[in-house]
Amino acid sequence: MALIVQKYGGTSMGSVERIENVAEKCIAAQKAGNDVIVTVSAMSGETNRLIALAHDIHKRPSPREMDVLMSTGEQVSIALLAIAIEKRGVPAVSYTGGQVKILTDSAFMKARIKGIDSDNIRRDLDAGKIVIVAGFQGVDEHGNITTLGRGGSDTTAVALATALHADECQIYTDVDGVYTTDPRVEPKARKLDRITFEEMLEMASLGSKVLQIRSVEFAGKYKVPLRVLSSFEDGEGTLISLEEENPVESAIITGIAFSRDEAQVNVVDVPDEPGIAYQILAPVGDANINVDMIIQNIGVDGKNDFTFTVPRGDYDTTVEILRKNFPPESGVVIHGSNIAKVSIVGVGMRSHAAVASTMFQALAKEGINIHIISTSEIKISVGIDEKYLELAVRALHEAFGLDKA
Amino acid sequence: MALIVQKYGGTSMGSVERIENVAEKCIAAQKAGNDVIVTVSAMSGETNRLIALAHDIHKRPSPREMDVLMSTGEQVSIALLAIAIEKRGVPAVSYTGGQVKILTDSAFMKARIKGIDSDNIRRDLDAGKIVIVAGFQGVDEHGNITTLGRGGSDTTAVALATALHADECQIYTDVDGVYTTDPRVEPKARKLDRITFEEMLEMASLGSKVLQIRSVEFAGKYKVPLRVLSSFEDGEGTLISLEEENPVESAIITGIAFSRDEAQVNVVDVPDEPGIAYQILAPVGDANINVDMIIQNIGVDGKNDFTFTVPRGDYDTTVEILRKNFPPESGVVIHGSNIAKVSIVGVGMRSHAAVASTMFQALAKEGINIHIISTSEIKISVGIDEKYLELAVRALHEAFGLDKA
Repeated sequence: MALIVQKYGGTSMGSVERIENVAEKCIAAQKAGNDVIVTVSAMSGETNRLIALAHDIHKRPSPREMDVLMSTGEQVSIALLAIAIEKRGVPAVSYTGGQVKILTDSAFMKARIKGIDSDNIRRDLDAGKIVIVAGFQGVDEHGNITTLGRGGSDTTAVALATALHADECQIYTDVDGVYTTDPRVEPKARKLDRITFEEMLEMASLGSKVLQIRSVEFAGKYKVPLRVLSSFEDGEGTLISLEEENPVESAIITGIAFSRDEAQVNVVDVPDEPGIAYQILAPVGDANINVDMIIQNIGVDGKNDFTFTVPRGDYDTTVEILRKNFPPESGVVIHGSNIAKVSIVGVGMRSHAAVASTMFQALAKEGINIHIISTSEIKISVGIDEKYLELAVRALHEAFGLDKA
Repeated sequence: MALIVQKYGGTSMGSVERIENVAEKCIAAQKAGNDVIVTVSAMSGETNRLIALAHDIHKRPSPREMDVLMSTGEQVSIALLAIAIEKRGVPAVSYTGGQVKILTDSAFMKARIKGIDSDNIRRDLDAGKIVIVAGFQGVDEHGNITTLGRGGSDTTAVALATALHADECQIYTDVDGVYTTDPRVEPKARKLDRITFEEMLEMASLGSKVLQIRSVEFAGKYKVPLRVLSSFEDGEGTLISLEEENPVESAIITGIAFSRDEAQVNVVDVPDEPGIAYQILAPVGDANINVDMIIQNIGVDGKNDFTFTVPRGDYDTTVEILRKNFPPESGVVIHGSNIAKVSIVGVGMRSHAAVASTMFQALAKEGINIHIISTSEIKISVGIDEKYLELAVRALHEAFGLDKA
């Protein structure tokens, strides 16, 4: 007998009919011989309704009271799902985060889980019940209700799977798995059967918003196999697990991620002094602006050129900050442009040297100019003109044979 | 400095604007030099919305899960009220029943309060906070969420007032106090400044639905002064307190209660045997039918006539039950009719013998025939034809001078 944790998001719980569908899936998992714990989000629209009520009263409501308010959304969901399961003759019991209890710190609206008391859940599973736990919420050491921030139900599911040593944590969503790239850009994109935690993190942080990054990190850290699958269609979804549990696949590259939300900042003719990189980037970081790709060109006659990327919305602020240290009269030229970022991701890269050249060749063949490059052990990212984004994704998908299993 | 518990019902909390109005009232009470605890109901309509969701899934949802579901209504209210108070620069804190904690038995959907832990509330009051407690809900010894049944927020308020030895428990509602009778029937009805617990119980159980009977009983038992007043208009409302705290008023009668929901059952020509009353009434009581007024006429030639009243909706069932023991061939005649009940209520009755004759004279003067009479120490009720109800109420109101303070 295996222990499975299932998580259903707001869309999956969006109506009475959909809740009945979730009940059927939970029961099917139990009938297949598993112990089943289910974590659910608020019905879609409910969290926004509650936030709107609060904001009608006050633009900046206190985080403690927002958590009291918002946690009701998941509480409604757990009760309705329990009722739907019990209607089918299967025993079920619902728990709020506080009842479990899921102990968190006291950072209201963005709390972190510190521990989970699994006694009640174990007892109920042993009694043959399906155990339903409100996602997204917990309780601090003083008994205050806390929430984990939006999307925190994924984190609740992974935390429960970890605490109870579950065999698998299944995240039900409105897509049927993780794809080699976004099918809206490349119709030949293929659903992956498996992907490693590291690859998933690179894919997620680069814009494939299937899973919350925190929950993938958490699952990877505690080695809980994660599976993404559809609430609405049957199928095996995509299993996210450790590298050693992923069989060697022929593909060197697992997927292609991309983001339109980038801007490139060029800082030209900076004096070549020790500590100049720090002098440029520290004030930007201090302003909570996330610097991504960085290049320093060693220039001629004691001057350097510095290029880096920031989120597009932070571009103007970044230039303002730089101008404080490097006013126009310093001779430093600052300019920039919007760019798109395309990344190839894959653990296979570690043992294959020719990956970068394949990538650059594919882009060159299409006449796409690369402005900036950054690499990690399992990822190569390039910054290109936004207008070439879709073309670049399709060219790389083809070049690495991602449409073939 | 006094300690006041205020309770606001669903209508008072029915919109963001009304919640802001409640916030103003709470703050005014604090600024007047009081410690303030507030209990609130779910926003009007919310409880019905939640019940409808559950019933869409299952006609008979489990009581435990219904309580998980329904308790969210008050949880939303406490958070919104806290936000509205904090917006005005006054510190506030909200608590669910479980957080307080309000310990109840495990009778889901109709739980009874066993105890209240007042430590958190005391600490917050001492820190100058307005303390907001979700009405209607508690938690059992296993940590399950319970509710007290509809209208239970009044009970929560009285229980808090008792546990914290409050000086007054104020029930804010959509009427401005308790009236001598229903102003829709007698426009000269006058708002009472004071009424005793006993009188209020007689008035409430006879159909003046201002307060939940259980909360009045509770307040009387623990001697917590109750005040009924309007959320929407200024005024002192009506104070419900012990008899000795009510100054002697000139009126012998305090108010007139009435109910249309009555039926009279006549059981004629019953054999005059020992135990016949038990034989008639026991099966009716066993069927959970509430028998109210009872008369036994000692008849001639060994026969008795028996008359009693039941709620109108139970009339047919009552006759069916009686026919089992007294089939037509037994010679017992069973018939009946809808009647209305009018009652005069007042502690002054104890020391005034002529009250009954004044009542009967006033009704006789209007040509109103009395079918059945019952009395208690502070109440005289008569059953009359329903068509005379309004006329009887007005005649009695006049006869006892209730329009004059």
